[in-house]
Formats: sequence, C-alpha cells, structure tokens
Amino acid sequence: MRDTYHDALDSVTDELVAMSRLVASMMERASAALLEADREKAEAVIEADEEIDSINQEVELSTTELIALQQPVATDLRIVVSSMRISTTLERMGDLAQHIAKTARMRYPDHAVPPELEPVFREMASIADRMGGQMGEVLASKDVDLARRIEADDDRMDDLHRSVLDHLLAQDPGPVNQAVDVTLLNRYYERYADHAVSVARRVIYLVIGERAAT
Amino acid sequence: MRDTYHDALDSVTDELVAMSRLVASMMERASAALLEADREKAEAVIEADEEIDSINQEVELSTTELIALQQPVATDLRIVVSSMRISTTLERMGDLAQHIAKTARMRYPDHAVPPELEPVFREMASIADRMGGQMGEVLASKDVDLARRIEADDDRMDDLHRSVLDHLLAQDPGPVNQAVDVTLLNRYYERYADHAVSVARRVIYLVIGERAAT
Repeated sequence: MRDTYHDALDSVTDELVAMSRLVASMMERASAALLEADREKAEAVIEADEEIDSINQEVELSTTELIALQQPVATDLRIVVSSMRISTTLERMGDLAQHIAKTARMRYPDHAVPPELEPVFREMASIADRMGGQMGEVLASKDVDLARRIEADDDRMDDLHRSVLDHLLAQDPGPVNQAVDVTLLNRYYERYADHAVSVARRVIYLVIGERAAT
Repeated sequence: MRDTYHDALDSVTDELVAMSRLVASMMERASAALLEADREKAEAVIEADEEIDSINQEVELSTTELIALQQPVATDLRIVVSSMRISTTLERMGDLAQHIAKTARMRYPDHAVPPELEPVFREMASIADRMGGQMGEVLASKDVDLARRIEADDDRMDDLHRSVLDHLLAQDPGPVNQAVDVTLLNRYYERYADHAVSVARRVIYLVIGERAAT
C-alpha cells in the first residue's frame, strides 16, 4: 500500500517535471519564432499549448484521485495541493509562450521586435530559458539553493522590462502596431519570469516548511 | 460528523463568494479610479489586493484542512478541488483590478484613457462589473443558466477589446505612453472577463458533472 502511495506521489511530480520541460521548450521556440520571424516554430508552439492544457487537466484528475484513494495527510497532502497550484502556474506559462508565438505569427514575415530592441529581447529570451530550465531542475531535485537563484534572474528580467518601457517612451515612436506588440511582448516575458519565481517559492515552501515571502 | 463536514464545505463556498464580491468591488473602484482619475479609489484598490492574496492563502489552508480531516470523496472532493482552482482565478482577477488602479495612479492627475476611448472603456468597465456581480451570484447559487449568460457578456468584451486595438492602429497615434497604457488596460479588461468565464465554467462543470468546452 505504501508503495502504491509513494508511486502515485512520485508520478504527480514526474508529470510536473515533464510539463515544466514542455513549457520551457515552448518558450525557447516562441523566442526563436519571435527573433527570427520563424513561422513554423510559431505554429509548433501554438499547437503545443493544447498539450499543456491537457496535462494540466490530467494533473487535476490524478491529484484528485490520489487524494480520494490514498488520503494523504501532513506533508504529503501539502505536496499534492502544491502540485495542483504549480500545474496551474505552468499552464499560464504555456499560455504566455503561446501569446509570444502568436505575435510572431501575426507579423510574419516581418519581425515584431524592431532591430534596436532585438538585443534586449534576446537577453530576456535567454533569461527566460535559463529560468525555465532551472524550474524543471528544481521541481525534479527540490534543490532550494537553485530555487533561490531563480529569483536573482527575475531581478534582471525586471530591469530589462523597465528598460524596454523607457525605450518606448524616450525614442521617436515607430509605428503604433510595433509599440502595441512590444508593450505586450515585454509584459509576457516579465510575467513568465514571475511565474517561474512563484513555482520556485512553492518548492522552497514545501522543503523548508514555511512560506517564503511572496 | 456529517454536519461538521457540510459546515466545512459550506464555509469554503462562503469564502469564495466573499472573495468574489471583494474582487468585483475592487474592479468597480479600479474602473472609477481610471475613468475619473480618482487617486483615492486607486489607492484603496491597491491596498485591497493584499486582502485578496490572504483570502487565497486561507482558502488553500482551509481546503487542505478539510481534505485532511474529513477525507471527502466523489462530488465533494471535486467541489473542494474546484474551490482551490477558483480561488487562484479570483486572486488573478484581483491582480488585474490592481494593475488598472496602478495605471490610474501613475497618470494621476491626468487621465490614462484618452477622451475618444473613454466611451469604450466605460462599456468594458460596465461589462466587467456585470460579469463580476454575476460570478458572485453563480458561486452562491450554482445557477447554471446565469453561468452561461456570463459567456455572452464575454463575447461583447472581446468585440470591445478588438475595437480598442483597431482604434489604436487606425488613428493618428497620440503620445506613446498613452498607447502603452491603453494596450495594457485593454488587455486587463479582456483577461478579467476571461477569468470570470473560467469561474462560470467550473461551476457548470460541478453542477452538470461534465467539463464544458474550455
């Protein structure tokens, strides 16, 4: 009985790790689609979002079943409840990757990001990739130090987010559709990073047993 | 024992209803702050967001406790799990009201919304208010017909969202900061409506026992 129980708990964790890897790969491809105006990559990301939504529903079903059949308590129950919350967060991160891909597709064959902002979006993309990768590792390993490093990356993302806004306001405005795109893209990267931090904090909370300041 | 059990289930529902009323009232005040450049209302909304976050944490605690102590199964367990998800959604809706209030505060004493777009934002605000109010009623009454009416309002919100984008792209662009504000505000209202629909769908799912198309 205990084995079935821990197998079930492990398999929820495995689902989350797989989900987070898919989300990270979606984001990587969404950034490539955006920065290289690659329509095929954009389409692939847009399709992958359905898979994320269905994994999210599976996690809800499997955690509900686990609760009903195994009646976990204490720490195990906290793990199950946190897994549901993390799954919702990962699903939103997938949505954000999809929004970026849709913007790339909408502007194809043009580039949604103007050349002068490409370097900063490239850096945001690279930070998002690192955070996404670390998030998967943190979910698999429960490494609290690594979880904390995700926050440092988020500080850099916030700086870049601010610099894009400053750029928008300080320069001669280009076409309005570009300003609209850049405003939303900027927000998508910033939100993605915030969600990665919230996943990391949940893991810290589970491991050290107290809520990290949110 | 059954009484304690159903009391506990009812009290989770009560928490959600109270939370949704607070969210709806935040959104109403955020729209007023935005459309009347009312700084005090903006501040009140920004403060209220902490309350929402803490209710969200309480719902997580009380549902976790309910599961641990009462071990609900079948429909009751689905209600508890759905309550957690709804609480997360309500928390995001509170965030969106807060974002609108922060935009109003940032531009104070100016108006963030230019005069020519005020009528459409006024209609978006009014739809958001209606949807927010209906959402509270649906959570309290589990009225499936009312839940379905929330979707009709969402269609109108989507039309308005599109018309703001069209306006931004078709007119002589005003100052860029205005385009940035309007782009984000437009998105906040649209997302708020989407979340209200997702709450309504969850209730439909609970009542009729099958997932409505999402």
